[in-house]
Amino acid sequence: MSVTAPRGFRAAGVAAGLKSSGLADVALVVNDGPDATAAGVFTTNRVKAAPVLWTEQVVRGGVVRAVVLNSGGANACTGAPGFQDTHATAEQTAASLTGSSARLILGAGEVAVCSTGLIGERLPMEKLLPGVRAAVRGLARDAGLAAAEAIMTTDTRPKTTVAAGTGWTVGGMAKGAGMLAPALATMLCVLTTDAVAGSEALDTALRAACRVTFDRIDSDGCMSTNDTVLLLASGASGIEPTQAELTAAVTAACHDLAQQLLADAEGATKQIAIDVTAAASEDDAVEVGRSVARNNLVKTALFGNDPNWGRILAAVGTTTAAFEPDQLDVAVNGVWVCRSGAAAEDRAKVDLGGRDVTIQVRLNAGTEAATVWTNDLSHAYVHENSAYSS
Amino acid sequence: MSVTAPRGFRAAGVAAGLKSSGLADVALVVNDGPDATAAGVFTTNRVKAAPVLWTEQVVRGGVVRAVVLNSGGANACTGAPGFQDTHATAEQTAASLTGSSARLILGAGEVAVCSTGLIGERLPMEKLLPGVRAAVRGLARDAGLAAAEAIMTTDTRPKTTVAAGTGWTVGGMAKGAGMLAPALATMLCVLTTDAVAGSEALDTALRAACRVTFDRIDSDGCMSTNDTVLLLASGASGIEPTQAELTAAVTAACHDLAQQLLADAEGATKQIAIDVTAAASEDDAVEVGRSVARNNLVKTALFGNDPNWGRILAAVGTTTAAFEPDQLDVAVNGVWVCRSGAAAEDRAKVDLGGRDVTIQVRLNAGTEAATVWTNDLSHAYVHENSAYSS
Repeated sequence: MSVTAPRGFRAAGVAAGLKSSGLADVALVVNDGPDATAAGVFTTNRVKAAPVLWTEQVVRGGVVRAVVLNSGGANACTGAPGFQDTHATAEQTAASLTGSSARLILGAGEVAVCSTGLIGERLPMEKLLPGVRAAVRGLARDAGLAAAEAIMTTDTRPKTTVAAGTGWTVGGMAKGAGMLAPALATMLCVLTTDAVAGSEALDTALRAACRVTFDRIDSDGCMSTNDTVLLLASGASGIEPTQAELTAAVTAACHDLAQQLLADAEGATKQIAIDVTAAASEDDAVEVGRSVARNNLVKTALFGNDPNWGRILAAVGTTTAAFEPDQLDVAVNGVWVCRSGAAAEDRAKVDLGGRDVTIQVRLNAGTEAATVWTNDLSHAYVHENSAYSS
Repeated sequence: MSVTAPRGFRAAGVAAGLKSSGLADVALVVNDGPDATAAGVFTTNRVKAAPVLWTEQVVRGGVVRAVVLNSGGANACTGAPGFQDTHATAEQTAASLTGSSARLILGAGEVAVCSTGLIGERLPMEKLLPGVRAAVRGLARDAGLAAAEAIMTTDTRPKTTVAAGTGWTVGGMAKGAGMLAPALATMLCVLTTDAVAGSEALDTALRAACRVTFDRIDSDGCMSTNDTVLLLASGASGIEPTQAELTAAVTAACHDLAQQLLADAEGATKQIAIDVTAAASEDDAVEVGRSVARNNLVKTALFGNDPNWGRILAAVGTTTAAFEPDQLDVAVNGVWVCRSGAAAEDRAKVDLGGRDVTIQVRLNAGTEAATVWTNDLSHAYVHENSAYSS
């Protein structure tokens, strides 16, 4: 059901010829209201793609009636002409939607745009604009999955989610299979809800959700130019949840999508949770988790089914978190191979045969905790990222 | 000639049985004086191996008459017993040297200790201590190469260097083939000189040299627990160079060894220089260089001979350096594939067939510059680091 699970939304996914494979590459999500409130979280990379610069403005405007997304081209590092392409895409979307229904009269400034694919090349507008028109014609209440499929790049499967409130719902779709990194990743995510919620409530919920989900996936430490997470509310349920209820549902949806992204990370054979506990602060726990998550030597060791806790300690040692080196404990899949900074239980007891790996790092410096998720570094990762120009 | 090129130094390399291969694994460098001044630079990892903690104290003491090094075990994350092992190694070295010659009377506090190999396991002292005694017996003026061979781990060849002053010389040896990272790497380096130089002059020269050589190699962004660079002066030439002369020769020796480390990095097929120019500050240039050097997507692209400048821009965008995204220029092997943040010359013109790659990043924000060196991320890197438990 994806983004069309909540009432008030239609979607479409069509093939415009941007992908040489001929697969679907243009998606559209339309908010039929009655409300059109929205919030957005964007890449913190200073090199931002044209659609990110555009959509930041749209979200700031407070009203988002549609999101048009394309795969097959990131429209990043394309200069002023690239920005004009994004503008033209929004204009086309607004014009076609306005012409399609008496219910909808909107301007380009109410249309968010997202792009993903190769950096540094202009989009083929002669294909994209007809694709936008086709997507408008194809809009349907049951096309949530088609939209999710149209935004896939190296993803092997579409990612969709639904989180239920009481009488209202959050739906979502995402794409991303690599460059998962701090403060988002090459990932696009559109969340929808039929709850009644103002832009501020949506913003609070979305930031809180991203902070503990997408922001804590660190697949390869690389941060994309295009990352965008949008949350649109139609208010069609007529129910206004509390902030806590809204945040909980949005967080559940983001968590589910984040885990799907991780499960589909390029070339990964392991899905690794790094639980950092007994930290002096949550920031310390996150810093330590990220440092382990990004360490290529830890990641290759896990690919080789080697519970190499020395590399984990070396990664922890590069952080500024509060801890004493001789008070660090480390467990791999429940076996405490390191206690007080030295060897403890027999590493041969660690079973790394499965896909799921849990690393526990106990800093013994406080009571805070955080979990960061990552993948291993495999031959397939090297292959996919050397062969695929993205 | 290595560490024995300057007058006043003897060395040895012997097999003590620490390596299962039976290859040499204990090295010894002895300073016969007349001086015994020294300086050291150590890993900034907060998880420091026992020999690092020991040797920091020795260098602080101001007199270093010998360095004993072992491969086949890092003696890191081994707790108080591991520190006692290091102490015992220094004691054995001091006792054996004192017994070997009327010229040498020294205490353990004048013996630096370095270890490299697997983290988290105790050293087999019943093999190491006899090895130290054998090394003392084997000391010779022409054993510099033997010492360099005895400190190899995954290195495929020994690394030695000589830099000539006027009437004095700097010699050196190093080991390291992976974990090359900021603020050193799993690397051990012993430099010697027969110049007359006080500890302060040596320290100034060594820090200046490391800052622009070892500290700017960033092979995989991982920082080891054992990194140590030592500089010992015998004064046997009777010549006291100026600070500038000393710094220049030590820098030349470090640069030569750093390039050898890079050339031998685990599984690398490319040797990559990242020249950052027109930066507002040298720190900015280094930050940008490191960010590109550590980016797995850039590194896999270069492994695949793909001049993917979009990934380079995305890496630059994660830094705090002064620049405007639409004023960035990037060249790969001399072809300016990106100008003003957008596509410029045809990327098909870039020849990535050879081992050497130069990436130029022009920030257009000032007049400072720096070069950071790295390698690509290859299948062999993944293989070696997943199969080798280090």
